[in-house]
Amino acid sequence: MVKIVVDAMGGDNGSAIVVEAINNFLKDYSDVELTVVGKKEELESLEGKVRILDARDVVPMEAGALEVMRLKNSSMMVAIKTMKDEGLDAIVSCGSTGGFLSAATINLKMIPGVKRAALVAPFPTSIKGKYVTILDIGANNENSPEELVQFALMGKLYAQSIYGIEQPKTYLLSNGAEEGKGAPEVKEAYKLLKESNFEGFSGNIEARYALNGDADVVVADGFTGNIFLKSSEGIAKMMSGMIKKAFKRNLWSKLGYLHVRKGMKEMADTMDYKNTGGAMLLGINGNVVKAHGSSDARAFYHALRVAKLLAEKDVVNAIKKGIENA
Amino acid sequence: MVKIVVDAMGGDNGSAIVVEAINNFLKDYSDVELTVVGKKEELESLEGKVRILDARDVVPMEAGALEVMRLKNSSMMVAIKTMKDEGLDAIVSCGSTGGFLSAATINLKMIPGVKRAALVAPFPTSIKGKYVTILDIGANNENSPEELVQFALMGKLYAQSIYGIEQPKTYLLSNGAEEGKGAPEVKEAYKLLKESNFEGFSGNIEARYALNGDADVVVADGFTGNIFLKSSEGIAKMMSGMIKKAFKRNLWSKLGYLHVRKGMKEMADTMDYKNTGGAMLLGINGNVVKAHGSSDARAFYHALRVAKLLAEKDVVNAIKKGIENA
Repeated sequence: MVKIVVDAMGGDNGSAIVVEAINNFLKDYSDVELTVVGKKEELESLEGKVRILDARDVVPMEAGALEVMRLKNSSMMVAIKTMKDEGLDAIVSCGSTGGFLSAATINLKMIPGVKRAALVAPFPTSIKGKYVTILDIGANNENSPEELVQFALMGKLYAQSIYGIEQPKTYLLSNGAEEGKGAPEVKEAYKLLKESNFEGFSGNIEARYALNGDADVVVADGFTGNIFLKSSEGIAKMMSGMIKKAFKRNLWSKLGYLHVRKGMKEMADTMDYKNTGGAMLLGINGNVVKAHGSSDARAFYHALRVAKLLAEKDVVNAIKKGIENA
Repeated sequence: MVKIVVDAMGGDNGSAIVVEAINNFLKDYSDVELTVVGKKEELESLEGKVRILDARDVVPMEAGALEVMRLKNSSMMVAIKTMKDEGLDAIVSCGSTGGFLSAATINLKMIPGVKRAALVAPFPTSIKGKYVTILDIGANNENSPEELVQFALMGKLYAQSIYGIEQPKTYLLSNGAEEGKGAPEVKEAYKLLKESNFEGFSGNIEARYALNGDADVVVADGFTGNIFLKSSEGIAKMMSGMIKKAFKRNLWSKLGYLHVRKGMKEMADTMDYKNTGGAMLLGINGNVVKAHGSSDARAFYHALRVAKLLAEKDVVNAIKKGIENA
């Protein structure tokens, strides 16, 4: 039985979407024990189905680690503390990214030997149903070559656990495919991975090919990974806007939409981060899932699903063992 | 009369697309003098319309600066030398990016006071017809805060000259909008721009908002800018593939396409780098235009158009003056 603790507050859309997501989640999954933390009067409809912990404070969206740590009675801190004290399997929050990740790291502690935690998310690829694991997409502002090498290892262990890929093809994100391309840290990480005969290391990959379905894992420092994530988001949004405009042009184009609705929905579903359930913080003693701040009930539902999966696949333990043996 | 020298060889598609582009270009513009360098037997159809310089060697696509410099009889080196010796206004090539940019920089020299040249390209935005100037998109592997500040200045001068924007809104590409976000170099550049009261400096911008039409200039180091460029390309290509698939689904979806053809074509045109004519190297004594290696005749036509525009707007001189007065 997987035990998950949920911070019900702090997202852009308040606790209502969290409550809706949990109600839907419990309809689909029964083998899970939920602890939900937040203002109890907002969580009434969950009574009897989950354990409710009352917490009166809400962490503001832009709060940093210090502010979160100070807000001891916030839903976020109570959730983190409960996870730690009771040894629960996973935590989910859609509150302040920086604050949540830092507070979770400080309280749950890093896995021994891990230099830096990394934020990881699955990205859709041109191959239907195939996802690529990209990290770090934003937990750090800079990373050393040694940290990049460890990200490669954690990404590999994640892809092995979650997707069952025996030897994930692992690349460094760079500005050219050839050896010797890239920022100084990338060049050095390339050397280290090559010299250590890192299994599955396949060299550099350009950003334009990262989603073509060849790579299983793509490694970047947190700043670069975040640029990759958000430029992808930006272009996807821009193109979606143009597509909508194209269909709204006139009556005929509106009729045209009826015929391609299914294909377009498939695309929208593939591109929609709400189906992938947010990002996971790897390298921490515990499964930490950060749902998007603007999550709706569907996105939060998938974040819960991901938390359950991480716990069932015991990703934390896989990383612990992998780091020990590295 | 603008004088442009063209390296006709070295692209993925050989000299044929260059010849076709030049023939089309000369139909549309008469106030231009072209010197075309390459194997003269491949340039026959241009005889009488342009000056042809025979050059027997072709620079390989992956050649670096040293190899280019050694290939003295290559079309690329002859073109660069001719530009330098005769003081021509602009040069266009679709050959090896690294080799061309380095050889052009070494031969034409940097504008006094310029620390590093930067590759700049216009990106389409959500606002129809509005482009944002993003630099450096790949001339450098790393940049200091001082170099980023100078990129901001060159980008601003470019946007003023080419788009006639009096005070371009200039941003630093970062992983968050707030001051204090970003890689160490970005944070420091932010400080320098703020302290110097850089006109138009508008703070950090996240990659997802870079193309929403608000920014006129977006500054990044060459590595990060290249990741931005290529992840945008990658997502655009992936989505285009999905759209095509959606329309090819069945007879009805194919019929549906007929009704949205116009809107879709508009989107394709907006997203197609071939309409923007490649990238310009700023900071050099001369207008240097790098067309995409896989340019077709249309893309190369637009590269010629851009070279003409840069020369007419005298961007080099604008940057020279701007750097002097900085």
